[in-house]
Amino acid sequence: MQVELAGESDGRQRLRAPLAPNVNDKGTAFGGSLVSLMTLAGWCLVSGRLERAGLEAEVYVADSLVHYLAPLRADLEAEAWLEEGDWDSFLAAFRERGKARCRIAACVRLPDGGEATRFSGRFVALAKA
Amino acid sequence: MQVELAGESDGRQRLRAPLAPNVNDKGTAFGGSLVSLMTLAGWCLVSGRLERAGLEAEVYVADSLVHYLAPLRADLEAEAWLEEGDWDSFLAAFRERGKARCRIAACVRLPDGGEATRFSGRFVALAKA
Repeated sequence: MQVELAGESDGRQRLRAPLAPNVNDKGTAFGGSLVSLMTLAGWCLVSGRLERAGLEAEVYVADSLVHYLAPLRADLEAEAWLEEGDWDSFLAAFRERGKARCRIAACVRLPDGGEATRFSGRFVALAKA
Repeated sequence: MQVELAGESDGRQRLRAPLAPNVNDKGTAFGGSLVSLMTLAGWCLVSGRLERAGLEAEVYVADSLVHYLAPLRADLEAEAWLEEGDWDSFLAAFRERGKARCRIAACVRLPDGGEATRFSGRFVALAKA
């Protein structure tokens, strides 16, 4: 996939991957690569928040819903953000119970700014044993 | 990913991939690889049905819902099957309108036969222009 981090700003984690190694039989971005990139962007966002709070956690994806909206004929860039609630509550729950859940949204955009794919997934953080 | 076809029987398309190139940071199967394998198994199932019926189509995944149920520490084998309706109706719709939709279920099993991940996705077949 050749994924690379593309920075975080405004609470949004960005990840990039080039199109060439991620194409399907139609010369557009492969659905599996799109899901992988959005899932990873969400995972990095949640893991980063925990790490910066000084908390050691294993982060898992529990479920995900993906809509494929339009074919993408360009490099892949996913961005992920917190879909519901706020990070303070998430971190407080983790500190209290050693476990916390959150829902992350993500998308991959088309060159014109529209959406190629849209993701919503639940992540679970568990304190390291 | 190193995906390979693992046969079709009882209406179920199977695909395999080794664990080693598909692990996450926890040494278990990477979520993105699991989704990709299940999505591809569904895509192969639908494409194969159309091809055997002598129909030329582009097959797309429109959406997918995935539940991650248990970590997998073994090679990945996905199986996909028609979740709703029947193939005769799907093929008849495609012949009539040059377009048809179907819902495909898929899973990746644990070595003990339980499910590691479960997938449900909608696929669309379009007649080649």
